[in-house]
Parts: sequence; C-alpha cells; structure tokens
Amino acid sequence: MFSKEEVMKWLKRGGLALGVTCLVFLVTHRVALAADPTGAGSTEQAANYIWILICAFLVMFMQAGFGMLEGGFCRAKNVTNLMTKNLMDFAIGSLAFFLVGYAIMMGGDWHGLWGTQGWFMLGDYYDVDKYLNMFWMLVFCATAATIVAGAVAERMKFKAYLVYSVVVSVIIFPIFGHWVWGGGWISQLPFGLGGLDFAGSGVVHAVGGFVGLAGAMVLGPRFGKYAKDGKPQAIPGHSIALATLGVFILWFGWFGFNPGSTCDPHHLRISVIAVNTNLAAAAAALAAMLVAKWKTKKWDTGMALNGAVAGLVAITCACAWVEGWAAIVIGLIAGPLMYAGVKFLESKGVDDPVGAVSVHGICGLWGLLSLGFFADGTYGNYSTEAPFVTGLFYGGGGGQLLAQFITAVVVFAWAFGIGYLMFKIMDKTFGIRVSPEEELQGLDIPEHGTPAYPDFLTTRR
Amino acid sequence: MFSKEEVMKWLKRGGLALGVTCLVFLVTHRVALAADPTGAGSTEQAANYIWILICAFLVMFMQAGFGMLEGGFCRAKNVTNLMTKNLMDFAIGSLAFFLVGYAIMMGGDWHGLWGTQGWFMLGDYYDVDKYLNMFWMLVFCATAATIVAGAVAERMKFKAYLVYSVVVSVIIFPIFGHWVWGGGWISQLPFGLGGLDFAGSGVVHAVGGFVGLAGAMVLGPRFGKYAKDGKPQAIPGHSIALATLGVFILWFGWFGFNPGSTCDPHHLRISVIAVNTNLAAAAAALAAMLVAKWKTKKWDTGMALNGAVAGLVAITCACAWVEGWAAIVIGLIAGPLMYAGVKFLESKGVDDPVGAVSVHGICGLWGLLSLGFFADGTYGNYSTEAPFVTGLFYGGGGGQLLAQFITAVVVFAWAFGIGYLMFKIMDKTFGIRVSPEEELQGLDIPEHGTPAYPDFLTTRR
Amino acid sequence: MFSKEEVMKWLKRGGLALGVTCLVFLVTHRVALAADPTGAGSTEQAANYIWILICAFLVMFMQAGFGMLEGGFCRAKNVTNLMTKNLMDFAIGSLAFFLVGYAIMMGGDWHGLWGTQGWFMLGDYYDVDKYLNMFWMLVFCATAATIVAGAVAERMKFKAYLVYSVVVSVIIFPIFGHWVWGGGWISQLPFGLGGLDFAGSGVVHAVGGFVGLAGAMVLGPRFGKYAKDGKPQAIPGHSIALATLGVFILWFGWFGFNPGSTCDPHHLRISVIAVNTNLAAAAAALAAMLVAKWKTKKWDTGMALNGAVAGLVAITCACAWVEGWAAIVIGLIAGPLMYAGVKFLESKGVDDPVGAVSVHGICGLWGLLSLGFFADGTYGNYSTEAPFVTGLFYGGGGGQLLAQFITAVVVFAWAFGIGYLMFKIMDKTFGIRVSPEEELQGLDIPEHGTPAYPDFLTTRR
Repeated sequence: MFSKEEVMKWLKRGGLALGVTCLVFLVTHRVALAADPTGAGSTEQAANYIWILICAFLVMFMQAGFGMLEGGFCRAKNVTNLMTKNLMDFAIGSLAFFLVGYAIMMGGDWHGLWGTQGWFMLGDYYDVDKYLNMFWMLVFCATAATIVAGAVAERMKFKAYLVYSVVVSVIIFPIFGHWVWGGGWISQLPFGLGGLDFAGSGVVHAVGGFVGLAGAMVLGPRFGKYAKDGKPQAIPGHSIALATLGVFILWFGWFGFNPGSTCDPHHLRISVIAVNTNLAAAAAALAAMLVAKWKTKKWDTGMALNGAVAGLVAITCACAWVEGWAAIVIGLIAGPLMYAGVKFLESKGVDDPVGAVSVHGICGLWGLLSLGFFADGTYGNYSTEAPFVTGLFYGGGGGQLLAQFITAVVVFAWAFGIGYLMFKIMDKTFGIRVSPEEELQGLDIPEHGTPAYPDFLTTRR
Repeated sequence: MFSKEEVMKWLKRGGLALGVTCLVFLVTHRVALAADPTGAGSTEQAANYIWILICAFLVMFMQAGFGMLEGGFCRAKNVTNLMTKNLMDFAIGSLAFFLVGYAIMMGGDWHGLWGTQGWFMLGDYYDVDKYLNMFWMLVFCATAATIVAGAVAERMKFKAYLVYSVVVSVIIFPIFGHWVWGGGWISQLPFGLGGLDFAGSGVVHAVGGFVGLAGAMVLGPRFGKYAKDGKPQAIPGHSIALATLGVFILWFGWFGFNPGSTCDPHHLRISVIAVNTNLAAAAAALAAMLVAKWKTKKWDTGMALNGAVAGLVAITCACAWVEGWAAIVIGLIAGPLMYAGVKFLESKGVDDPVGAVSVHGICGLWGLLSLGFFADGTYGNYSTEAPFVTGLFYGGGGGQLLAQFITAVVVFAWAFGIGYLMFKIMDKTFGIRVSPEEELQGLDIPEHGTPAYPDFLTTRR
Repeated sequence: MFSKEEVMKWLKRGGLALGVTCLVFLVTHRVALAADPTGAGSTEQAANYIWILICAFLVMFMQAGFGMLEGGFCRAKNVTNLMTKNLMDFAIGSLAFFLVGYAIMMGGDWHGLWGTQGWFMLGDYYDVDKYLNMFWMLVFCATAATIVAGAVAERMKFKAYLVYSVVVSVIIFPIFGHWVWGGGWISQLPFGLGGLDFAGSGVVHAVGGFVGLAGAMVLGPRFGKYAKDGKPQAIPGHSIALATLGVFILWFGWFGFNPGSTCDPHHLRISVIAVNTNLAAAAAALAAMLVAKWKTKKWDTGMALNGAVAGLVAITCACAWVEGWAAIVIGLIAGPLMYAGVKFLESKGVDDPVGAVSVHGICGLWGLLSLGFFADGTYGNYSTEAPFVTGLFYGGGGGQLLAQFITAVVVFAWAFGIGYLMFKIMDKTFGIRVSPEEELQGLDIPEHGTPAYPDFLTTRR
C-alpha cells in the first residue's frame, strides 16, 4: 500500500502539525478557576493526599525494580539497551498519559467504552484532586508499560519500543483501565458486583504480560535460544545481584501498589492488604523454589525471584477482599503456576527472556479468578460499607467468579489482540527486530554507542 | 541415637500431618465478626496507620540493604547463594511469623514467658489492628533473621539456612521479643522502668548478631581466612558499589525502624528520633574511618560502611530518649567499638565475613547500655506522658542502667545459647557446612546451578 | 606565609581545643524546658510531621542515587573512592549542619545576612519543631554537598574532599540558604514577591553545581580527557546499570524534595507539584535523548539519564507555581540546555566527569528564571493564600522575573566565588590533586587500599 518512507513522512508532518496546534492552544488558554488548582484542605483530605502520594511514589519506584530485574536477567551486552528502554517508557508514558491517556481512561464515560474529557489536564482538570488521580493512574500505566520490556528484550529495535510506549500509554492501558476502573462496561457486568480488580492483576499485569506475549511472538526467539533439535537452551542473566535487588524493590513498591489502592487511609483495611501482599509473595517464592528443586535438584534462584513477583501479581486483584490464609494459598498456587507457564511457553517456541508473560500474564489471570473463590465478604468495592465482595468458598455463589472469568477472557483478548496488531503493523512498516549482526554483537553498541560495562572483560557471548 | 534418615523421615511425616491439619482447619473455619476486619477509621487512626505502614515498608526495604551489603562483602562466587538466602529468610519468616511467631510474641502473656493466642491470625486476630501490629513485628523479625546470613556466609548449606530461618522466626526472636516488648519478664524488671529497648538494639540486632556468632563458631572459618601461622587474612568483598548501596538503603530504612517505633505520629518526638538516628550513624561512620586511618594509614571504606551501620544499631535502643549530642557520643563510641570487635573476633578465630557479630551484636549491647547513661528524662516508655526515662548522667540513678545491663546479659545468653544449640543439632544431624570442594568452587554452582555473573571473567579465587 | 606543617599543627590544636570546649559544655548543660522536646501533638500536627519526615527520608535516599549515578559514570578503578566520598560527605554534613550550619541558616536573622542562634541545637532549639526543621534543611544541605563529588571525581584527594564537606555544610550552603529561605536579603528583594526558589533549583542545585565548577577548574582535567590536539575524549563510565539505578532513585527521591517542600500536606497543591516534577523529568529525558540522536545518530543513554536529572533540577524552583504544560516546556528546554552545557564546558577545557555542572548548575539557573515566566498565579509563597506568584506569561509583569534574575546572578557568584577561594586555599596549602601515578592507577588502592571489584578482570584503563 504505502512505502515505509511515505508513512514516516506523513507521520512526521502530522506530529509537527499536532505539536504546533497544541502549543498555540496551551499558550493562549487561561487557567480555569472553576476547578481548584490551589488546594487548601482539611486534615482528613491531607491524610488522603499523603497516603495516595507516598504510595504513588512507591509504585513509581517499581520502575527501578523492573529495570534491575529485567537488566539482571539479560546478558551484559544488552544492558544499556534494556535500561534505556525502561527509562524511556516511563518518560514517554508520563507525557502521553498526562496529555491524552488519562482523558481516555477517567474523563467521564461514553457508552461504557472510554472517557472524553480532561485532554491535556486543562480547564476543570487543572484541579488538585484531578491531578492527584491522574498521577495515581499514571504510575499504574507505567508499570503495565515496563513489563513488556522484559518479554521483548535483547532483540527489539529501540525505535519500535518508543512507538510501543506511546500506544500502550494512550490506547491499550487506558481503554481497558476504563472498562474496569473508569466506570466502563466490565465494572457494570450483571454478575456479582461486576468485574473487580482491586489493584490491577488484570488491568496492569495481565495487560502488560499479554502485550509482551504478542511482542515475543512477533519477534520470534533470540539466536541461540533453541538448539538445532528445537530444544530450548538456558541463557542465564548477567547479574543475580541486580535481579535480586530488583525483586526487593518491586516487593517494596508493591506496598504502595496494593494498600495504596484504597486511595483512602481511613479504610483501615490497608493493614490487611499489606499483610496479604506480603504473604502471597512469600508463599509463591517458596513454592516456586521448591518445585524447581523437585524438578532440577537445584535451589533455583531465578525461579525463587520470579516466584516472589508471581505471588505479588496474583494477590493484586484480591488483596483487599481475602484473609491471610487465602493469600498464602493464592501464592502457593501462583509460584508453581508461574513455573509451569515458563516451561510451557518455552516448549511452544515463545522466547520470553525474563519470564514476564508467565509472571504477569498467567498469574494475572489467576489473580482475577482467585477473587471469585476466596473473597470473604468483609470488605466492599473500594468501600468499608456493604455490599461486600463474597466468593464461592464463603457462600457468595458463582456470580462473582463468572464476572472475574469474563474479565480474564477480555483482558487476554484485548491485550494480546491489540498488542499483536500493533507489533505486526510496525514490523511490516519498518521492522521491529534488529539485524542478526546487531543481535549477536549485543544491542548496546549499535543502538546506543555505549557498552554497559566498558571496564570489565566479558565472555562476549 | 537416631540416624539422619530416620529423623528426616519423621520430620517429613510430621510436616505433612501438620500441613493437612492446618488446611482442614483453615477451610472449615468462619470469619470472626467479634474482631474488625473491615476497618472504617477516624483521621486520627488513619494517621497512625499511614505512619506505621509506611515505616514498616521502609523496614522491609532494609532486606534489600542487607542483601546488597552482605552480597557486596562476599566473593563473586558466592553471591547467588547469599542473595537467595536473603530472599528466602524473608519469605520463610513472613509465613512462619504470621502463622506462629506472632502468637508466641504478642498473643497475650503466660507467666512473663510467651504468648498463647492468635495462632494463624484467626478468630479475634482477623482484625485490622492485629494485622497491623503483626506486620510491624514481622519486619523486625525479618531484620533479625537476615543479619545472620552475613556471619555464616560463603560456607553454610542452603538447606541448613532454611531450617535456621524457621527457628529464628518462631522461637528465637518471638520469645525474646515477648520478654521485652510483649509484656514479658524483662519489661517487668523492678529497676528503672524495667528493661527498655526502643526499637531493638537488643531485641533485633543483638539477637541477630549473637545467633550469627553461634553460627560462625559452629561452622568454623572459611578456607584461606587464616594462614598456616594462624594469622588472619583479608578476603575482600566483590563489590564496594553494592555494599555502599546496601548501607544507604539500610540508613534510609532505619528512618522507618526507629521513628516508626513510636507507632504513633502524634508523638512529635519522632522528629528527635529521626535526628538522633542520623547523627549516630554519621558519627560512627566518621569515627570508624578515622580509627582505621590511624591504624592502617588508609581511608578504609569497609570500616566506614560498617561504622555507619554500627552507629545505627547502637542508637536504636536509646533513640527516643536522648538528646542530639548524646546520639553523637553514642555513635562516636560505636564506631571504634565495632572496629575493635572485628579485630578481636578475628584474632580469636571467629570468621565473620561481613562483621555482623561486631556491628549488630556488640554494638547492640552498647546500645542497650547507653540508655542507662544518656536518657534525658523528656520522653516516657513509648509515651509522651510521665514517668519519663532518665539515665545516670541526668540524675536518674543507676536503676535504669541496671535493668539495661540485665537485658544485655540475657540477650547474649539467649541468642548465643539457643543459636549454638540449634546449629549444633543441625550439624550433628545432617551437617551444616558445604564440602571443601564446593566451598572452593563457590556455593553458587553446586547449590543453585547459577553463577551470579556468568558474563564476566573473574579471578575465580 | 605559613608552611604546610605549621598550618596543620595549628588546625589540629584548634580542633582539639574546640572539641574539649564543646564536650565540657555539652556535659554540663541542662535540658531546656522552655522548648518542647517531648511533643504530644494533634492529628493536624501529626499529619504535618508524617509528611515532612517521610519526604525528608526520600530526600536522604537521594544520597544513594547520587552515589550510584556518579559511581556508574566513573571508571571501575575509582569507584571505591567515589562511594566513600559520597558516604562521608553525608556523615560529615550531618554532624556539621546539626552543630553549626542550621544556626547560621535558620537561627533568626542578623541584617539579612545569617542566623545567630541554635548552636548545637541546644536550649530552646531542643524542641520537636526545631529538630524537624533542622532535619528537613539538613537533607537539602547534604544534596548540595554530594553534587560536587561528581564534578571533582577521579582526581581529588580524599582529605581535600573531607575539608570541602565541612565548608559547604557550615558556610556555603547555610549562608545562601539563609538569604533565600531564612528571611535573608534575597527573600526581601523589592521585586515580585522577592527572590523565590520553591525547593532549591538555586539554593541546592546551582550551589552544588557551581562549587563543582570551581573544583573542576582548580583541579584541571583528568589525564586522557584531552588528546594532544586538545580534542576532548569520551571516558565512558563503568556501569550503565548503576547509573540508571541512580537516576531512578533520584527521580523517586525528588518526590520528597519538591512536594515535601510545602512542609504542609494540607496544601493539596502537593499533587500538582508531584505531577509537575514528573513531567519535567520526562520531557527533559526525552528531549536530551532526541538532541543527542540528532547530533550523534545514537540513542545516547548517558544523555537521557542526565536529561532526566536536568529536568528535575529545572522544575525544582517553579514546581509549585506552574501548570503541567509549563512543566513540560521547562523540561523540554532543560534537556537540550544540559546537552549544550556539557559540550560547551568540555570545549572550554573544564572536565566534569559526570556532567554535574551542566545538570545542576546551568539547569538550576534556568529553573530560577523559568518561574519569572511561567508562574500562573494560583499558589502563594509557600501558602494557599494570596498574594499568589505570577510570572510574565500570566500578566504578572517583569518584577518576579527580575527578582529571579538577581537570585540567579548571586547564586553563581557566591557558589563559584567561595568555592574557588576554598579549593585554591586548599590547593596552595596541601594540594588537592592526587599524584599522576595515583590517578593513572586509580584512586581506590592508594587512598583506600581496596579495589571496588577485586574478583573481576578489568581492562585497567
């Protein structure tokens, strides 16, 4: 249809025109005083703001955790590339979500599909409450975005990753987020209390995981991942120290992710949420390590690390609605499930260098479903008042489980579908995989001109 | 008495039986509504929850600090092992303390010895306040647990470390913790206001340090630590960068540890606690470095790093009850004391790869005693109301000092005694030290199958 | 005039005399009960304390960020030295600022020049509010101090750095800080609302940046920085992973730095500040990377990392007083400005190994000026009440811009002037640069006796 040059030329012209329009608009606009950009608040409000902001800071810090975990699991020759991708998806996501994504996700509701107000956070959206809510949603958007970096690591062009960062921040995350958290159609399902996802097992993690699956599939496996006979080969990461640091940072940041999602510290339930978050991570790390020990006779560190994250992902949906023992069970299932997922995908020819699809995608689905079983009927839908969320094991009937099942199916279809389409279009237009020479050399020098560790002698695999 | 196989067989059967019993119990129980698992709170409560939770998150993050510090001080060939131990003691401790440890520590009081309620946090313990308190105590338990990893580094079997993790989390820490913080006999001593330990110089750090001493003694020194003539040899750690990062993370996390221990931000004393914490760390880092400079003519980075932690350990007991200048003096003493302790233990044949015994054990005792001297009579026993804690230098008489001295003696006897017994039993049963071949090769490959840094050429010491 | 030996002898005697005097004074003083060292507070106060303390902890954690960023940008042979400097400037600064610096900065006002009360935080300053404010200012002082480490990296004597740490903490930072934040003459300028600097683009960053410039100039460039024909050579840092971690930690910590500077969470404006902080960092990282791509055809990771920090520095002054779109524009300018600054300084023979002068100095000045253009008239001078700060683009006239311009000129003159004088005096007295042999070998072994990475084979450049 169109040549690559033509497409790029029109994209550039369109971008320029859009940029100039925005600039003119921004400079000529006036601050809306209908909203409250100044913000003199009560102590009750101050407590809410403290809670939400500090928790948001913790979630933002998870960017460092993902960078270290994914970087640690990569080879030294691709570390600069991985780190730069992690930095830039946050930078691009921060701008794109502020300008456009938030409006689509939370700017009112149009037929249950998306929002239509709050573009550029201007007018009534220049308001302390709106800015606060935007910031909260932004750090979740950025988490979804950065998950993909691991699945497509060591072979995707930097440019393609920049484009992807825009698409996930303005379309993939915001629209699904609207369906569940923005008053969209999933939240209105007539089963149970509608599709629920407390802090984002689905909205954040399954979205990231299955976009990553799409990316890994469109890219194909790395050189050397499969032997001539098709047997998968282990490609160990370059630094267990960084990977461990990454997991601890993620675990730490998750205490903002989950308890912070009450968006209100007057819900003292936050203590239960913190405990559940911790228990699931612990149980899953232990279970994943024990399964690996049983299978391989080694205390597999990589599986223990990914196990912890799998537990955190799994409990994210139900953390506010279950008891501590259920959090342990959810984690005990998540760890082996992650292990099985990694082996299954590997056997099917999907090369996911850090296990992101299994950790975030598969365990994200398990998280969505788990709520339908274990919700104990003591806490509401982001509320300390009835109706409370109740699952199958507590006599709540199967309605909630059905709503959760639908949510799980939809998140897979949406994230994988749009993700696949996006990567395919890019691949057809300008190609998303680096050249074989670049891949063998490592992406750091051809793409960035900087090896990550110039002072050290490496094995140069 | 019994063969190793028999013991293991019965341990496995017992574990299975216990597990099944628990599962049946958990699934058939009903949520207790006498307690409050939902939690709609006032702003006063919300402020308390914010404070305690965020501080607890900071303390949890110290796990990363210990991992990086201990890992940085190890050789590259043992880093995977060290990191995995740090991860798993937190995972195991989180489960064990939730299920059993908390009940022993804080579940009421039986003759000043231990608690007897709250098993599995069920019934009345499924309550937002109880969960909050459990989480707070858990992160302290995990800190005590992880300290030991450094003292036994580079030669202990992974399996033995897993067993140790359970014992410290359900017996060693909770019982001593009960004596001081749970209303046990030390807190009831008839001298001063009873044995006091604001944030755990003794309860956390001395416990960890002296269990570590027991482990280091039962294990014996690493190959190469002592020359044929018995002279100790320096075995430098593999990454000063990681170790420095670890110390900064610990310093950061300690601002949760100490100020958070008011468990109430309405005690504005938290500002004094934060300042004292910072001053002691700074003074001890400086003093330790200057002593090392005087002795060795070098600006010794390892000593400066350990000095900072020694100061933090030392001020942990008295941080709420002293003035800023006293915090400086406590730190100025802690730094050189740590230095002397390291040299003393080394000369006695105790090989503590990271200096944990001196930093946490010896400076923990100094912290306990320091309160008896410097408490200035302006803050109470976790209270802003009289009676205030007053030490010798402020006319308080020697009563408090005596109580502190008893606490110090008891913590040493308890932690070292039970620790020694535990490691000896394990050593007799299945052996806690890896084989000489494994030790020389490094523990990473034989135990975990994964070198920490496969891409780099190392000196393979 | 005086020989080096004589100067050192008298310095030592003076130090001893001062030390003894202090000790006698401290031990014989009594706690002042006019102040409130106990602190029983309302929930309103508790919320303020939580906010200020947690934000201060985040700012303190930026020490780790600077250590990792500067360390990552250094060569492996100087990493121990860099890390130890970062640790010790915080240790020394913590002591010096508590004892003397705070009194000079915030202890009342003498003719608009400096403070005169609160020495050693004794008497009326042993008070929960005073301690809180001291701690808040301390972490800012420590940030200014640690910025310089990067500019003078890889060639300054450790001893000289220790002396510098004292001078910046008791003179350079506190006096300029008094002028802007302590009620001094800049804050009283009769233009706009006087010279303003919300969280310290000038007070913290430009001060650090231009003292660093002085240091880099007095030291001269590193061996190998310039070829024989005078062309600057790239000396790549040893670890992009650590540098990236450092930037993420800084970005995280900056959410304490800027929003925390309201010192009051009842100003709900904190949400806008957090968003602005994030937007400027994102925009600057993107813009710096794109400029570098345009100039060099590579996705330059170092520029992207420094770009993020440049954006954070630039928004620090105006963060509370502008809209989100303006924060983006401020960042979009800061990124390329940083890039140009790095190239300009390099071309002028100033060797700044990490780009600190450009990032913190030049972008700090841009931050000061930007307020005069973009302040939107919706928030006051640390207040939610009028008069509000209004810049040129919002009809505020040029008064505020003039005040900002004066502030920018003064901060450059003060920091560079006093910095230059200090380094010159030290250089004449005992020399601040290590010997050529030490520099070529790397500073780690001659100064500290410890290589940073003894287990790895390095290229030993």
